[in-house]
Amino acid sequence: MARRIVSEFLGSALLLATVVGSGIMADRLSGGIVALALLANTIATGAVLVALLLTFGPISGAHLNPVVTVCDALVGGIGWREVPGYLVAQVSGAFAGVATAHAMFGLPAYVASTHIRSGPAQIFSEFVATFGLLAVVWGCSRARPSATPFAVGAYITAAYWFTASTSFANPAVTLARAASNTFAGIRPEDVGWFIAAQCAGALAATGLFQWLQPAKSKNS
Amino acid sequence: MARRIVSEFLGSALLLATVVGSGIMADRLSGGIVALALLANTIATGAVLVALLLTFGPISGAHLNPVVTVCDALVGGIGWREVPGYLVAQVSGAFAGVATAHAMFGLPAYVASTHIRSGPAQIFSEFVATFGLLAVVWGCSRARPSATPFAVGAYITAAYWFTASTSFANPAVTLARAASNTFAGIRPEDVGWFIAAQCAGALAATGLFQWLQPAKSKNS
Amino acid sequence: MARRIVSEFLGSALLLATVVGSGIMADRLSGGIVALALLANTIATGAVLVALLLTFGPISGAHLNPVVTVCDALVGGIGWREVPGYLVAQVSGAFAGVATAHAMFGLPAYVASTHIRSGPAQIFSEFVATFGLLAVVWGCSRARPSATPFAVGAYITAAYWFTASTSFANPAVTLARAASNTFAGIRPEDVGWFIAAQCAGALAATGLFQWLQPAKSKNS
Amino acid sequence: MARRIVSEFLGSALLLATVVGSGIMADRLSGGIVALALLANTIATGAVLVALLLTFGPISGAHLNPVVTVCDALVGGIGWREVPGYLVAQVSGAFAGVATAHAMFGLPAYVASTHIRSGPAQIFSEFVATFGLLAVVWGCSRARPSATPFAVGAYITAAYWFTASTSFANPAVTLARAASNTFAGIRPEDVGWFIAAQCAGALAATGLFQWLQPAKSKNS
Repeated sequence: MARRIVSEFLGSALLLATVVGSGIMADRLSGGIVALALLANTIATGAVLVALLLTFGPISGAHLNPVVTVCDALVGGIGWREVPGYLVAQVSGAFAGVATAHAMFGLPAYVASTHIRSGPAQIFSEFVATFGLLAVVWGCSRARPSATPFAVGAYITAAYWFTASTSFANPAVTLARAASNTFAGIRPEDVGWFIAAQCAGALAATGLFQWLQPAKSKNS
Repeated sequence: MARRIVSEFLGSALLLATVVGSGIMADRLSGGIVALALLANTIATGAVLVALLLTFGPISGAHLNPVVTVCDALVGGIGWREVPGYLVAQVSGAFAGVATAHAMFGLPAYVASTHIRSGPAQIFSEFVATFGLLAVVWGCSRARPSATPFAVGAYITAAYWFTASTSFANPAVTLARAASNTFAGIRPEDVGWFIAAQCAGALAATGLFQWLQPAKSKNS
Repeated sequence: MARRIVSEFLGSALLLATVVGSGIMADRLSGGIVALALLANTIATGAVLVALLLTFGPISGAHLNPVVTVCDALVGGIGWREVPGYLVAQVSGAFAGVATAHAMFGLPAYVASTHIRSGPAQIFSEFVATFGLLAVVWGCSRARPSATPFAVGAYITAAYWFTASTSFANPAVTLARAASNTFAGIRPEDVGWFIAAQCAGALAATGLFQWLQPAKSKNS
Repeated sequence: MARRIVSEFLGSALLLATVVGSGIMADRLSGGIVALALLANTIATGAVLVALLLTFGPISGAHLNPVVTVCDALVGGIGWREVPGYLVAQVSGAFAGVATAHAMFGLPAYVASTHIRSGPAQIFSEFVATFGLLAVVWGCSRARPSATPFAVGAYITAAYWFTASTSFANPAVTLARAASNTFAGIRPEDVGWFIAAQCAGALAATGLFQWLQPAKSKNS
């Protein structure tokens, strides 16, 4: 169990280091062409997800996302006893990752973000983004588990662009990005609605896939 | 059967949400550099196809395309009885996806496109694009079905650039994009020729691959 | 045998349609930012190679390249009797692909290129590019044939950038690109040295890998 | 054994030819948009890693990196007797690759770099980059060795962007890049700290994964 906690912590830390770090680098080098900055941010995030899910999947399932862990418990995958450890590891790992990214770019460990991400379009985007993510997770992990890392990396690559919110789709990621006043940040006051929409989207997809594919457990 | 219909509906909706949504995002952020907008649109579309075909393939085959469904019926794959349900699911899913994308970006559900896509070069492009798509579908799904999602995603990534029409290659996609006055739209009056060329290209590839690879059914 | 000839013809045609067509599209949309045009051209070419090798590999081996065919015959793979048919299919397919690309973009079927690609740096680049390509082909196809399409697509994606010549690495491609006065073209008088360097690089890699990995045949 | 030495030499040479060559090409064509140059450099490097690890993995394990070789010996993988040969092959191959890239672009074989890469942020970046690389290598190569080439290529693609140093993560690469006064270069006086940080990161990850995943040997 300790190994699985450390795995979720490390995976979440490297995920956030990538999301925030590549956002800083891309923003600095893009000369104000926002699409170019987001493209670099996207490619880095999608690629690191493939690497992290392949690396940490065999140890802890590589959830790296509280809604994945909770939904997996709901459908009888991971036991409820393990859930709190997973969530603590994911959130603390995410904050550790933000501090790591900031250190790599010579910034203070944490600064509250001023990046406004509010309004119904943004919140609906998070619902759609997380619905799609959980659909991909359930669809792949039941029928073709070895392809899940590629499917999730590909999905997030797309979701950075097809949603207006750039697809956070993960409450641990959302909380930690509120502590980064950079390209990838989100204002603390916008976090609540994002997380609410993520939970709703995840539950909707999980319920639907329980019917679409009768299942027992997930082990991405 | 209801599961397969829902699978085709959802897959088509997420595909169109990506095509249209990423087009809007890319267009807004690219500062007028069209190649950059198309590159982001391309990467999002190719990536989401990998994710969707891996996710919905095990449930419904993940056709997500009327010409794939009809051609599969022609060669004895899916039964003709199932075809109408598939087509309705694909077209209605595609329109649902367009409305979803518009909602995520704060636009009205449907607006007729004014994007002109006409002339012989465009129409010939759709013939070539769909011929190539069906060639990839038949070639892979018979010999290496587990690689089909990657092959189709890669093919469409290329086809966005090597055809003058950016490769719609799908009648359901074409119809729904006529209802989006954004980067990815197509004028309603140009839809007919696009779909005719797509059908011709699909039939040509299907006939050719019947000879190239004696086959029974497709289950991408 | 007829099936294999048609497979090589079609694969070569779609390869050239992509190389030339995506070059035209990228050049038109890139607003003079050459790196952006080459990036789009690269992504389209690398992606289509993955799709084409997965599609046509099971039928004809998907050589799509005269030096691959000749080197495969040298090491006892394909029989020498089949070589002329393969070469004719590859070269004629390549020219058909150029005409197809031109038609999709409203250009005349063939125009001699004026794109200068000469000098020792360019020629040495083609030696290195083809040496590397054949190294990848032999290394993968003997030990992990199912990964060859991904390895070749990835290699060419890189080689477009790390060589000064953008890595033609294929005599059929080189001949056909001389008939396209577009982004991807090459002046007819520069073709000879390119092909000579490609043959030298291919032979060097083939000889070396005969020693590195004792082998019998290739069936990528 | 001679085959394995040649494999490490060739793989390292092609890796450096790509890193340096694609940097030169990208720098020349990007019109001063640094993010675009780095994106092309990134895509070329990530892609060539996939191709090289698939090609040379079956022969020598495709370490291509002294810290991978030494850490593999520490955990009982490769024998210590083989280590010196591997290291000599990797370093000499890396320098051969730099000279090859320079020759392809008409530059002198070696020129000391003037590219400043110093300070704690850069050095910490190399620690993180190499820690992550070894985590991916150990995590994948023990549980899913056939996916290692894709995981490593994806990881480096991300690490070019999420670290402030663009992730050298390899002492042989670092030494050789000091001999290239181009986009990818590093001032010779900055090399020492980079390599020290790389060794520390690699050892930390190796120790941690010894505990996370009890193991015997690596054969990526």
